[in-house]
Amino acid sequence: MVERFDVVDLIRTKRDKGALTTDQIDWLVDAYTRGYVADEQMSAMTMAIFLNGMQRDEIRDLTLAMIASGERLDFSGLSKATTDKHSTGGVGDKITLPLAPLVASFGVAVPQLSGRGLGHTGGTLDKLESIPGWRAALTNDEFMSQLDSVGAVICAAGSGLAPADGKLYALRDITGTVECIPLIASSIMSKKIAEGTASLVLDVKFGSGAFMQDPARARELAETMVRLGTDAGVATRALLTDMDVPLGLAIGNANEVRESVEVLAGGGPADVVELTVALAREMLDLAGLPDADPAQALKDGRAMDSWNAMIRAQGGDPEATLPTPSETHTVVADRDGVIDRLEALPFGIAAWRLGAGRARKQDPVIHSAGIDLHVKPGTAVKAGDPLFTLGAEDPARFERALESIEGAWSIADTAPAARPLIVDRIV
Amino acid sequence: MVERFDVVDLIRTKRDKGALTTDQIDWLVDAYTRGYVADEQMSAMTMAIFLNGMQRDEIRDLTLAMIASGERLDFSGLSKATTDKHSTGGVGDKITLPLAPLVASFGVAVPQLSGRGLGHTGGTLDKLESIPGWRAALTNDEFMSQLDSVGAVICAAGSGLAPADGKLYALRDITGTVECIPLIASSIMSKKIAEGTASLVLDVKFGSGAFMQDPARARELAETMVRLGTDAGVATRALLTDMDVPLGLAIGNANEVRESVEVLAGGGPADVVELTVALAREMLDLAGLPDADPAQALKDGRAMDSWNAMIRAQGGDPEATLPTPSETHTVVADRDGVIDRLEALPFGIAAWRLGAGRARKQDPVIHSAGIDLHVKPGTAVKAGDPLFTLGAEDPARFERALESIEGAWSIADTAPAARPLIVDRIV
Repeated sequence: MVERFDVVDLIRTKRDKGALTTDQIDWLVDAYTRGYVADEQMSAMTMAIFLNGMQRDEIRDLTLAMIASGERLDFSGLSKATTDKHSTGGVGDKITLPLAPLVASFGVAVPQLSGRGLGHTGGTLDKLESIPGWRAALTNDEFMSQLDSVGAVICAAGSGLAPADGKLYALRDITGTVECIPLIASSIMSKKIAEGTASLVLDVKFGSGAFMQDPARARELAETMVRLGTDAGVATRALLTDMDVPLGLAIGNANEVRESVEVLAGGGPADVVELTVALAREMLDLAGLPDADPAQALKDGRAMDSWNAMIRAQGGDPEATLPTPSETHTVVADRDGVIDRLEALPFGIAAWRLGAGRARKQDPVIHSAGIDLHVKPGTAVKAGDPLFTLGAEDPARFERALESIEGAWSIADTAPAARPLIVDRIV
Repeated sequence: MVERFDVVDLIRTKRDKGALTTDQIDWLVDAYTRGYVADEQMSAMTMAIFLNGMQRDEIRDLTLAMIASGERLDFSGLSKATTDKHSTGGVGDKITLPLAPLVASFGVAVPQLSGRGLGHTGGTLDKLESIPGWRAALTNDEFMSQLDSVGAVICAAGSGLAPADGKLYALRDITGTVECIPLIASSIMSKKIAEGTASLVLDVKFGSGAFMQDPARARELAETMVRLGTDAGVATRALLTDMDVPLGLAIGNANEVRESVEVLAGGGPADVVELTVALAREMLDLAGLPDADPAQALKDGRAMDSWNAMIRAQGGDPEATLPTPSETHTVVADRDGVIDRLEALPFGIAAWRLGAGRARKQDPVIHSAGIDLHVKPGTAVKAGDPLFTLGAEDPARFERALESIEGAWSIADTAPAARPLIVDRIV
């Protein structure tokens, strides 16, 4: 094979703040997937991209080249509209669990290919695996059949989708080039577009527990991804949401499923309900149902029926008892006042240290482990009131988890200013 | 072994324009030499260094860490002063050949560890290997004994000197991170300091045929290297010299040896003589002989005696006939006028294409191949006068060599402004 380009020339172009052409990016991604371009060359390239950026056309070309590196699912044979959601990840973010069956209860197909957690942000599949019998791996036939019958499917993505992205993400992880908008946007959108959905709603988070702490950077990421989706023929919108405080009251796996079921039963924490309904409205609107009322479907049992069907279709027992931790430790208020601050990241790390997350890809998660919050910013407390309950299978884990949340919350005399959860909508 | 640092943290520090500490750099270089830090991590680091730079302390630490990665020669047992020269490389740069024996003729030891050429700049060892019988590889004992008796030794550097630099240079070569002052300076100086010389003169070139085309960048490189040497206890100076035009009239291997012998015989092209004498004056001054007269030693045969002794000590026959090309092609003037322009880089590439250089490390060079110039900028010519003679073993090589020099020279009505060869002296 005669190679069309010299990778060192391409690295130099990006290093010297030039732009790569469509042909150059197509070749680069293909040659990297084939192994002709070496990891050390690609890592120099990604650092140059990190520091010098990419133009809009280059980000589009990179996304399309990563899609072209693998297979692309096709739902055009399905009789239903398809819609999908992606969150950039946060602490206590279980929204996919109530959202997928809620949207599916309106007759829309939600092919939600999800991942596992690594580090302090949890993984949707890890959470659902708390349910006895439930399995994440489906064959293509099972997947299509469940989309057709139940509508909602949450399952593991096959490795055939955007393999170049998988390889590049693993490289970025060990070379300090993760937090880069062109690379994040093309990574997320290449997978989502390859998944074949007709429409997509993005939940782009900012704040202490998010990937992008700065709202302006999160907005830039959201705008970049909405453009990428739109350019690729996927109707795409984004909500810009606050992830300074954990979402809901449960951080872990089984307890997050429990909280999701509360939401599907018409209850649950106000913030989880607000975000679930807002995302459902966007997805249903894109699926051609602008007048659908997702809040009503949570109240009248339709969303719960859809959840039960979805869990059963994947071998799970929605009536089964979920695991609870054998050891708990409750932190209580040391004074009267109002919860003033409760930072997402340290609580996420604490739950991870309790066993809810994994340090290495091959580690198991402990489904019962996690944190239940009894308060949120604005909650009035008396000295001695329970604030948070840490749960683990091994009490030796409490010490480091408590270290993580030390200083991450405070009680003040007056309530903090209210912060809106959903800050903007990007179309 | 418990690692002292996380390489991803170090990459992020440099990526975010921070400075690395001495401990961090020591660890990084050691961990990279051991293979704990992977090539893809080091290449992300070098691209971050390329784009964000390094502070003076970091460059010093990097240089010292690379020296510490291997052995360091010690000439303190020698009865003579030691001095060494390093050129950043150029087209037709054979200066080491007359310079080392010239300086040695004053009783100073010149331990000149040299390399082979890759790309358009030639290698000193390749040139000397044109001489029948001459060998580049010496044992440590042969090396020390020749330094003591003859004074001048030009031989291959062992791989034990600054092995971290060898590994890093090979990585930079394939990842587009060669042209970076902190990395060039630490690479050159780590090897030169490890070689154990008491004093060092640098020939830092700028212009079309040099590594650094821009004089300001070449000056910055020279200043950085002089500081590094001085800080490490090696008395170091630099000359800043013009490499816009090939040095001398010969570009190749055997023809450059022939030109060097002309200089040692008191003749040769004025520019080669000027630079040889200027560098010799600096080296002799640093070796404690400020009143030595190297120009006289070229005229009275002392330098030639020293050359003959040096070549014989390494198995070469200084009287042997040097190879000449079996095929030649001469380019003639197409009009009357004055040579106005003659660019080093295209002529260097042409000589390389004729076989004087190698494309891959394992390729041999063809000692007879190269270019003999009959003119330099300022030479008056008549239409039909010979300008350059290309020599090769295979006439098929002429075409691509001629392509390279097309447009690289011109004849004008008036002579170009004279350019000084030695532009500045940095101490």
